[in-house]
Amino acid sequence: MSSWGNCIRLSIFGESHGNGIGAVIDGLPAGEMIDTEALLLQMGRRAPGKDKAATPRLEKDLPEILSGMLGDRTTGAPLCAIIRNTNTRSQDYGEMMTRPRPAHADYAGYIRYNGFNDIRGGGHFSARLTAPIVFAGAVCRQILERRGIMVAAHIASVGDIRDERFNGTDISPELMKRLSTSTFGLIDQTREQQMRALIEECRLSGDSIGGTIECAVTGLSAGIGSPMFYGIENVISSLIFGIPAVKGIEFGSGFDGSALRGSENNDEFYYDGDTVKTRTNNHGGILGGISSGMPVIFRTAMKPTPSIAREQKTVDIKEKKDALLSIKGRHDPCIVVRAVPVIESAAAIAITELLKEAGKL
Amino acid sequence: MSSWGNCIRLSIFGESHGNGIGAVIDGLPAGEMIDTEALLLQMGRRAPGKDKAATPRLEKDLPEILSGMLGDRTTGAPLCAIIRNTNTRSQDYGEMMTRPRPAHADYAGYIRYNGFNDIRGGGHFSARLTAPIVFAGAVCRQILERRGIMVAAHIASVGDIRDERFNGTDISPELMKRLSTSTFGLIDQTREQQMRALIEECRLSGDSIGGTIECAVTGLSAGIGSPMFYGIENVISSLIFGIPAVKGIEFGSGFDGSALRGSENNDEFYYDGDTVKTRTNNHGGILGGISSGMPVIFRTAMKPTPSIAREQKTVDIKEKKDALLSIKGRHDPCIVVRAVPVIESAAAIAITELLKEAGKL
Amino acid sequence: MSSWGNCIRLSIFGESHGNGIGAVIDGLPAGEMIDTEALLLQMGRRAPGKDKAATPRLEKDLPEILSGMLGDRTTGAPLCAIIRNTNTRSQDYGEMMTRPRPAHADYAGYIRYNGFNDIRGGGHFSARLTAPIVFAGAVCRQILERRGIMVAAHIASVGDIRDERFNGTDISPELMKRLSTSTFGLIDQTREQQMRALIEECRLSGDSIGGTIECAVTGLSAGIGSPMFYGIENVISSLIFGIPAVKGIEFGSGFDGSALRGSENNDEFYYDGDTVKTRTNNHGGILGGISSGMPVIFRTAMKPTPSIAREQKTVDIKEKKDALLSIKGRHDPCIVVRAVPVIESAAAIAITELLKEAGKL
Amino acid sequence: MSSWGNCIRLSIFGESHGNGIGAVIDGLPAGEMIDTEALLLQMGRRAPGKDKAATPRLEKDLPEILSGMLGDRTTGAPLCAIIRNTNTRSQDYGEMMTRPRPAHADYAGYIRYNGFNDIRGGGHFSARLTAPIVFAGAVCRQILERRGIMVAAHIASVGDIRDERFNGTDISPELMKRLSTSTFGLIDQTREQQMRALIEECRLSGDSIGGTIECAVTGLSAGIGSPMFYGIENVISSLIFGIPAVKGIEFGSGFDGSALRGSENNDEFYYDGDTVKTRTNNHGGILGGISSGMPVIFRTAMKPTPSIAREQKTVDIKEKKDALLSIKGRHDPCIVVRAVPVIESAAAIAITELLKEAGKL
Repeated sequence: MSSWGNCIRLSIFGESHGNGIGAVIDGLPAGEMIDTEALLLQMGRRAPGKDKAATPRLEKDLPEILSGMLGDRTTGAPLCAIIRNTNTRSQDYGEMMTRPRPAHADYAGYIRYNGFNDIRGGGHFSARLTAPIVFAGAVCRQILERRGIMVAAHIASVGDIRDERFNGTDISPELMKRLSTSTFGLIDQTREQQMRALIEECRLSGDSIGGTIECAVTGLSAGIGSPMFYGIENVISSLIFGIPAVKGIEFGSGFDGSALRGSENNDEFYYDGDTVKTRTNNHGGILGGISSGMPVIFRTAMKPTPSIAREQKTVDIKEKKDALLSIKGRHDPCIVVRAVPVIESAAAIAITELLKEAGKL
Repeated sequence: MSSWGNCIRLSIFGESHGNGIGAVIDGLPAGEMIDTEALLLQMGRRAPGKDKAATPRLEKDLPEILSGMLGDRTTGAPLCAIIRNTNTRSQDYGEMMTRPRPAHADYAGYIRYNGFNDIRGGGHFSARLTAPIVFAGAVCRQILERRGIMVAAHIASVGDIRDERFNGTDISPELMKRLSTSTFGLIDQTREQQMRALIEECRLSGDSIGGTIECAVTGLSAGIGSPMFYGIENVISSLIFGIPAVKGIEFGSGFDGSALRGSENNDEFYYDGDTVKTRTNNHGGILGGISSGMPVIFRTAMKPTPSIAREQKTVDIKEKKDALLSIKGRHDPCIVVRAVPVIESAAAIAITELLKEAGKL
Repeated sequence: MSSWGNCIRLSIFGESHGNGIGAVIDGLPAGEMIDTEALLLQMGRRAPGKDKAATPRLEKDLPEILSGMLGDRTTGAPLCAIIRNTNTRSQDYGEMMTRPRPAHADYAGYIRYNGFNDIRGGGHFSARLTAPIVFAGAVCRQILERRGIMVAAHIASVGDIRDERFNGTDISPELMKRLSTSTFGLIDQTREQQMRALIEECRLSGDSIGGTIECAVTGLSAGIGSPMFYGIENVISSLIFGIPAVKGIEFGSGFDGSALRGSENNDEFYYDGDTVKTRTNNHGGILGGISSGMPVIFRTAMKPTPSIAREQKTVDIKEKKDALLSIKGRHDPCIVVRAVPVIESAAAIAITELLKEAGKL
Repeated sequence: MSSWGNCIRLSIFGESHGNGIGAVIDGLPAGEMIDTEALLLQMGRRAPGKDKAATPRLEKDLPEILSGMLGDRTTGAPLCAIIRNTNTRSQDYGEMMTRPRPAHADYAGYIRYNGFNDIRGGGHFSARLTAPIVFAGAVCRQILERRGIMVAAHIASVGDIRDERFNGTDISPELMKRLSTSTFGLIDQTREQQMRALIEECRLSGDSIGGTIECAVTGLSAGIGSPMFYGIENVISSLIFGIPAVKGIEFGSGFDGSALRGSENNDEFYYDGDTVKTRTNNHGGILGGISSGMPVIFRTAMKPTPSIAREQKTVDIKEKKDALLSIKGRHDPCIVVRAVPVIESAAAIAITELLKEAGKL
């Protein structure tokens, strides 16, 4: 299913080489002003061709809003935006019909859909489908910002080169602003050169590299979310795993915290004026599924781009024998760079859902 | 929300010190034989008091089935089981009314429910609520086993002491059987002593320790799950984060894989007779959200038990000032041990949901 | 599926002759005071044995609350109540195993569940399952009343004997109060004798009789509900058809209105002080799925009780031949009388869901 | 919410005078051949301007499929179709901004959306939004027909002029075929002239007229659907009330049946060869929410078109006083005629959902 949500209903559609892709977002409040420039800025951060570290394909990816807006405001009716597919070179994908690409959805999708799925460019599995997620996220983000909530992410690592982590108890609005408008977002910008060098090295060697993204949500008041299956972790992760290449997620101290003792990992409460805060933020702003008022922080693991130029071993499902495959076409050597705004967008959509459930929207 | 699922609807209810807890499972196929001994064995693996590494409280935790079974078979109507609360010592929890325990849901829950939530024993946030999850999982597990699908987990680490990982391309039914009936499940059983020593050390020092759990699902055929928001990762994680203390999840090579190159992380396909397999299993049995036919493998990060005997700093929300807190009561120094069957159960429920959606149940 | 709802999640479980029946209600606001006497009064209105027009079975039907309440207030966690099954005479149902009762769910259920469903007393299809609906409705009703919203229904007809209809533009709180606490609710109480006589005549002749129920919701402000699939009509009817024997529903002028001209059926707006009202209420308080501020009014058609004493023709599904059937046991000759509080309850639950979705709860 | 469904997810978007309208259908099986001619035939039955009894507006209403199809087959990915809005005369709607049309959603929508909804042409409440429903229904219909299931409806009444009803125990495929391709579907075609005369009379007098539609589903095997809240009645009605002007629905003998005795309304079972059938079909093919194998039959009440040429009393919500309103623009004097394929479509979508839930798709 490519539809999601309870209070906010998101429906993503489209295939890489079909007529178009898009999103329907139902349940948005009416009367919200949506700034088109800010929308396009977010779309642009994800769009290919903007950055040497990403694929050289040129897409315009300009969304057309079909419904749900009147002038610059939401009407409360479902907001649908579509993006036309252009500049597709379907001939690049011929061999895949019978030879599934390692680490891609080709084989699993073939079985799931009895061979009827559109496999050109990855079809509905294509990373191109993250464009409507960014669109939906850009809409939600503006609604959140009006309520003092900011969402921003940065490249936490590329291969073994790491950025600093968020200081979970002190994240400035300036940092959030900078990261959420950047195309190569880092807390410590001096790491950019090293990361780019590694990515370029992978590209030149016909290889790819994975990485991690760290995302923060600031300004979320305490008491949002619910226990068990509607906690902030559940809601965010149910969306995040819809993003291609994500293979892991951790909140707060996450996997590192699992090696600690309670006396180390527990975050002490204190009063900062009238506000209850914690001195550390190993809980990632979430306790029992519910916001504590501290920044929500999570990290996602992105696997290396599966499409690599090197010849790989695979099978031929028509001839039912082992085979070799050389993937042609243009592919990001490191999907992490362009995935940053996608992760932010998923977080923004999730928080919007949670706020609406809490009756705060 | 403590209800979950689309094709299988799970509703968990109860509070630690209320009259009882339980689960309703709707959408199960009719005519499934459910072995009570096997149910109780699973309940027993989670129950406290069985193992020195866990809390010494004695609970019977015997579920009473109110509906959905006739004799030893499911009727197809909602299956409801309840477990009475007994042996509760509410007086242990007095101080918490005003002084939220660090790393617990007390404070977030207080804000969320305007102070009306039942906080005795953690109320609805209590780890005791995992008992109905294990019940539901034990039912689903039997339905899955009848179809050749096994679910088993082991303690992957306690603090910095690690078990071996599953060999993702070769997991024997014997290992699955052993782990899924064990109360201290390890692949390499020689690590048990070390882990127990560490847990005991933490207990004696009034502290606690976190850990990780690795879970495998074998026998799942290729083609189960869907792209985007109904992938196996999404469905499993939406349940897993309902388990107290889980702060992270990763599938296949997960976070480690994010540091690799595509040429290292991609799993090559090959024919093993008529069956398509992969030579490695970095994808954790899931590609594009859909099963590949290889074992599904994931790891979860469990934070150290927040309740520790040592005095901690917190706030007094009535007096609105900083305060100290000493938690009384009996608590697991390492929740990981008893969480193993809970993780398995969540996986079993998730796979049952996915199978039903695929029309295979 | 016996689970329902989006913002409020209702899960109904149980079978007529199993261990017990009950309901889980998730998503209720915390801190709501629930008056037990008022709860039991509503349960009593539905309970059999209270009225000669209904079945002489004696059930206590006393619900036990397992969770979600602390003292007399909701905690915000799922509220679960169970009712034990007692006084069941399963031997009355032997013949039905092979000979499905006409107009009952026996045959359809047999096919649906491959013969594994519990058919004693109708199993999960039993009208007894309306007891937890009344429980849930009684809880919701109190939450609504605190916000000025009242729900009441009356017997609109038994066979061809009709009560007056609600005056859709003027329904007094006194009438609402009287009807919502009555066990034989009529606007024009002089019709009671006639209706009772008809029911008694049917009983004596081993027959049964159908009827209609009209329900009103007053005090609902304008602007609740949504277009298309989440309108008030959709939400109410999705619950109402869960009540056994309901075969139709109409809002406002309903089927009668479909024979009218626009100039007759359109309700003119006017200002009553600052409030927009309509001079007539053919729209039943709902326009475009959304409340207009006028009373919500709907009628449901209840078929005659299928269980009649007379010998009926049916089939023997074991012997695969036509057969005769005499239904033993004690059955309501007119289910309409006891269904009144069930209809009210469904309406109360639906309105609670809609209010929560609108952020008003 | 304008999204619907559990196994099949339908999302309808658009506003009458916005850029476009459309539907996303998620969860369809892959590999289903969809005949475009048959699709357009169904779209044409609903389209205005085809029949004198309907509005003279000319719309092309040609859907463009953006995704989910490859050649003439479904891919299994979400199927999205859009329809551009053209030929809109927004100036006709100026007065409505402040003067809500009686019996329209204008006032309720204004309150619901704080005045931000797009009211031109009814916005998202417009009957034009039934076009995507017909599109989705036309897709589902082809999937059903391939499995022997047919859906057809006829005009059961216009004002007080009535067509025959379906013979619930004997509906020929020829009749189903004729009705499901007709633009003025009647069982007894001799009634057409009378009905048209009444509609024309209403049109000439600046008035409108309501009516009823009866729909049948044949070929549905026994055992589809579930008790309580997922019965066929619940699922169908949850969709049907999404169609503008529907104010009532009844299954089988419905409201008439509520005046009968059990001995009259009960349908006796018998064996027709190996098949269990009923001699009458007062149950409308549904028992306990589950199909009996007999035709599913229901009727809907459609109110008269609210837009009438005559001057009507209303309020001016800006000036906060009573006011007069003359509705300009072109409107159907009887919406029933064009609503027939919409009702069929809703039924087809509902049955597709139910089949998928039952694992039969």
